[in-house]
Amino acid sequence: MLIIGERINSTRKGIREMIAARDAGAILNEAVSQARAGAQFIDVNCAVTSGEELRDIEWVIGVIQNGMPGVSICIDSPDHLAIERALSAYKGTGSVIINSITAEESRCSKILPLASKYGAKLIALTMGESGMPDTAVERAAIAKTILGRVKAAGFPEEALYFDPLVRPVSTEPGQAKEFLDSIPLIRAIGNVKTICGLSNISFGLPNRSLINASFLAMAIERGLDAAIVDPLDSRLMSSLSASRALLGLDEYCGDYIRAFREGRLGNKPIEIG
Amino acid sequence: MLIIGERINSTRKGIREMIAARDAGAILNEAVSQARAGAQFIDVNCAVTSGEELRDIEWVIGVIQNGMPGVSICIDSPDHLAIERALSAYKGTGSVIINSITAEESRCSKILPLASKYGAKLIALTMGESGMPDTAVERAAIAKTILGRVKAAGFPEEALYFDPLVRPVSTEPGQAKEFLDSIPLIRAIGNVKTICGLSNISFGLPNRSLINASFLAMAIERGLDAAIVDPLDSRLMSSLSASRALLGLDEYCGDYIRAFREGRLGNKPIEIG
Repeated sequence: MLIIGERINSTRKGIREMIAARDAGAILNEAVSQARAGAQFIDVNCAVTSGEELRDIEWVIGVIQNGMPGVSICIDSPDHLAIERALSAYKGTGSVIINSITAEESRCSKILPLASKYGAKLIALTMGESGMPDTAVERAAIAKTILGRVKAAGFPEEALYFDPLVRPVSTEPGQAKEFLDSIPLIRAIGNVKTICGLSNISFGLPNRSLINASFLAMAIERGLDAAIVDPLDSRLMSSLSASRALLGLDEYCGDYIRAFREGRLGNKPIEIG
Repeated sequence: MLIIGERINSTRKGIREMIAARDAGAILNEAVSQARAGAQFIDVNCAVTSGEELRDIEWVIGVIQNGMPGVSICIDSPDHLAIERALSAYKGTGSVIINSITAEESRCSKILPLASKYGAKLIALTMGESGMPDTAVERAAIAKTILGRVKAAGFPEEALYFDPLVRPVSTEPGQAKEFLDSIPLIRAIGNVKTICGLSNISFGLPNRSLINASFLAMAIERGLDAAIVDPLDSRLMSSLSASRALLGLDEYCGDYIRAFREGRLGNKPIEIG
């Protein structure tokens, strides 16, 4: 299970302020604390900064990789120029994921060559030319279209992560089930992986981390390969730990027991003396 | 989702002591508190009491139904004579479930007539003549054998709950997945339901309620109809509430939001004033 830390996102006011103030220490701290909490990739989104996305994302990538040379990055932008700038700024020894392409022809044709050139992995949203899919079957059909396009461009399918797009259960009660059912359908179309941005599921509800944690357990059980989450949410990370133990993804529950001893499952650390 | 409260079980020392002391107030309190926490059925197990199971279960059933005339009961015993005694003692206006039959011919032939005579529902463990099944497919095959026997006896299949038998992940890492995969397979054999005693999954691990809560989310997602649990475990019941909201089993998340307002999701109650 791959965990991408979502906190360095310019939709958050605190992050916008750190970027505007060029507060390198605060940005690096956001990256380090996410990595310590279990994130293998750090998502960087500067799309909502004040008209200077290209310069901002270049600066953020620089700050993070200076402090953490082995860091792996998820580049998250609607603008292919910002993606290109971030890719060329990245000098780390880790991996890069680009977030994201869709079935839209023009977006594919701009981003696929970049992904190939820089050896980046790719997140593909199952969003069609005509908008958001409702059913699991529609999501898998869009994924198949995208897979065809990606393979035609010579991009390796094993580096492709499909995001079937989570929608809030508070307003669309059937959508969680459609999302979950889409995971095995999408995994069956090829040697591809699945990913999601989790927290949208609980939009509009109280106690969101409880909903997110339960949904993560369900999604891992259905085969989800990766998730974009807040790794500082200890309820969510506890659910991840328990789910891995339950599904045989954590041999002899070793990681789970270690997390318990270190007090990372909502409990106090165990003193061994 | 049907919830059966498991607390009045003579494997627990405190319960054995209440029964031995004929402490009606304490036993009734165990039943009332479980019903208040969301249990629709109260499980009664007196099998480990000191050689007096028949008299003990009769007394416990009497105490509970005197205090709660509408109570529904789950009669849990390996001894068909204790089951018969409990059935005849039950005068409540609720329902009764018998826990349990297996594929064993002799047990079926003793308990099926009792279930029919008293109009009770039935839990059937997917345990074959030759022991515990390992795979999801084996569990479904045993369920099919039992279903055939049950239908031949004229018992209505819709009153049948199959328990695919949870085994501890700490010692058998692949068993949670086999259990979960068996739920849709068993539900496909007829108009039957699925149930499980949940807590065995976390045997031998720390922070058991976290494992149980994550497993419940997964099992509900796969279609589990009923669970035998400790309804006073607030983490478990929070997971149930979130899972129902996620899967469209709680219209407009009304129960979830009410549970939040009443402080039943691990939060403080919300004062409306």
